[in-house]
Amino acid sequence: MTLPSPETVTTVAILGAGTIGASWAALFAARGLTVRVWDPAEGFEQRTIAAIETAKPALLALGLTVDGGAFDAVSYHGTPERACLGAGFIQESAPERLEPKRGLFAEIASAVGTDTVIASSTSGLLMSTIQEGLPFADRMVVGHPFNPPHLIPLVEVVGGQATDPAAIDWLMAFYAAHGKKPIRLHKEVPGHMVNRIQAALWREAVSAVDSGLASVADVDAAIAYGPGLRWAIQGPHLTFALAGGAGGFAHFLEHFGPGIEDWWADMSTPKLTTELRQQLSDGVSDEAAGRDPLALAAERDAGLIAIQRALKNIR
Amino acid sequence: MTLPSPETVTTVAILGAGTIGASWAALFAARGLTVRVWDPAEGFEQRTIAAIETAKPALLALGLTVDGGAFDAVSYHGTPERACLGAGFIQESAPERLEPKRGLFAEIASAVGTDTVIASSTSGLLMSTIQEGLPFADRMVVGHPFNPPHLIPLVEVVGGQATDPAAIDWLMAFYAAHGKKPIRLHKEVPGHMVNRIQAALWREAVSAVDSGLASVADVDAAIAYGPGLRWAIQGPHLTFALAGGAGGFAHFLEHFGPGIEDWWADMSTPKLTTELRQQLSDGVSDEAAGRDPLALAAERDAGLIAIQRALKNIR
Repeated sequence: MTLPSPETVTTVAILGAGTIGASWAALFAARGLTVRVWDPAEGFEQRTIAAIETAKPALLALGLTVDGGAFDAVSYHGTPERACLGAGFIQESAPERLEPKRGLFAEIASAVGTDTVIASSTSGLLMSTIQEGLPFADRMVVGHPFNPPHLIPLVEVVGGQATDPAAIDWLMAFYAAHGKKPIRLHKEVPGHMVNRIQAALWREAVSAVDSGLASVADVDAAIAYGPGLRWAIQGPHLTFALAGGAGGFAHFLEHFGPGIEDWWADMSTPKLTTELRQQLSDGVSDEAAGRDPLALAAERDAGLIAIQRALKNIR
Repeated sequence: MTLPSPETVTTVAILGAGTIGASWAALFAARGLTVRVWDPAEGFEQRTIAAIETAKPALLALGLTVDGGAFDAVSYHGTPERACLGAGFIQESAPERLEPKRGLFAEIASAVGTDTVIASSTSGLLMSTIQEGLPFADRMVVGHPFNPPHLIPLVEVVGGQATDPAAIDWLMAFYAAHGKKPIRLHKEVPGHMVNRIQAALWREAVSAVDSGLASVADVDAAIAYGPGLRWAIQGPHLTFALAGGAGGFAHFLEHFGPGIEDWWADMSTPKLTTELRQQLSDGVSDEAAGRDPLALAAERDAGLIAIQRALKNIR
């Protein structure tokens, strides 16, 4: 498979412009790319324009914008085929249902260039299932972002059984060229990798609330003022390795491994009953202390910008 | 139990001046307190002095120092009793072995003031076991910090069966007055809470490496450039709640709860065999790319300072 150099792509198509798709559109527009957007919902143009406007200050603050026409070349289209015309890259962010997603890909078949890579933002489906029988299956790759995609660098990249490894390489390079941190997964797993790691942490966080060990707000504060700070810098393995001192990770594993295995054996899986879900929701309400989701999301986004600026010269 | 106001404490004793104890000493010295240090090891004075010197710039950068003699009043003592004389608070950070720890507490009995709270930095022992039969058992509380204690605000606070709740209240107030983020746990659990949550996350991170999903370095990067950024701001529950959009946590739990429960059921517990430990150590070596543990710890510490300064006006 021969693909054009990722830097030569000047036009991208965004299929599906909900929260995730609109955020991708804002990022690519900031990068000076021509962005062609389609979404089936009424009034998506206005909502996408508003989302891009909202994202602008953040993208500027993160240094992700390029000069010369950034944000200027976004167009809106009534059909997905039309949005894909002339696109050197396609990012699909449609709802997480297999058949409508496959239907959408079938619909664009005639409009997709012969050397265009197609990424899916899917968090819950496997690419092998999505791509089956599609004419450009070998150029289809999962590119799973984290909310909000224009503020969080991570993108999980994984191909399906029919994906050509060259398309995965291409997508890694394309994302990296546009300021993302793509991480390549070597196989397909339900939930990919990072949402599973999040779920694993959250399982014990829910158990702590469920067992009466601490309140929802206290669990959150404990992480945010504790290990969350270290994970944001170096991740979980390296953080533990440094606890091994001069002896490194080997010493840590020797010294703390057995204790950790005891805790693992002692952990249990909470059942998300109606009562527990109510307790968790009530706990978050207490924690929010009157701030609505919009205000909390604004705090998160301000924090995401501030942390990344602060770490720019450190890691 | 009547205890003095935490703000009236001017002198603290540090029992055990390894990495953790020396870091506590630096913090309390920065706060303008008189700090009396004991450790059984040869040359602990020089090492503690050096550790305090090393910690100074960080404590200044975090705004934790108070004017007027900060860092000036640290003294070193040949016995733990002597270190405790006149101390209005005692922080013990001896090795994690029950009998030596209990022996140390028995040894200081005659020197401990009648209204002095004694905190233990223990990460692995339960206070109910440590305090049994000691004359000041009702004033003994776990105050478990996170490495490095002078840079990470979190302290887990939990009493034992014999602890008076007033002593727990007192310790919460004392730590808060000195810039820490104390979190109160409502019961004793092996590993307290946060190390268990760390272990839970790490379990799935180890599984990812063990199953060939991603390299050690890629798992770390995925967290550090992904959800680690959000956890450092708002913790795991609120982070997930915001994924529920306007519907909040209830909507998130309704919509994503079943999928997460499927992942929980699909997770497994890796066995930390010699081979897997070697694979993890090798992976961290690759990630370190020649940086030694000291250099990596310096990067972590610079990051901890930078992040906390960046978030100061946000959360």
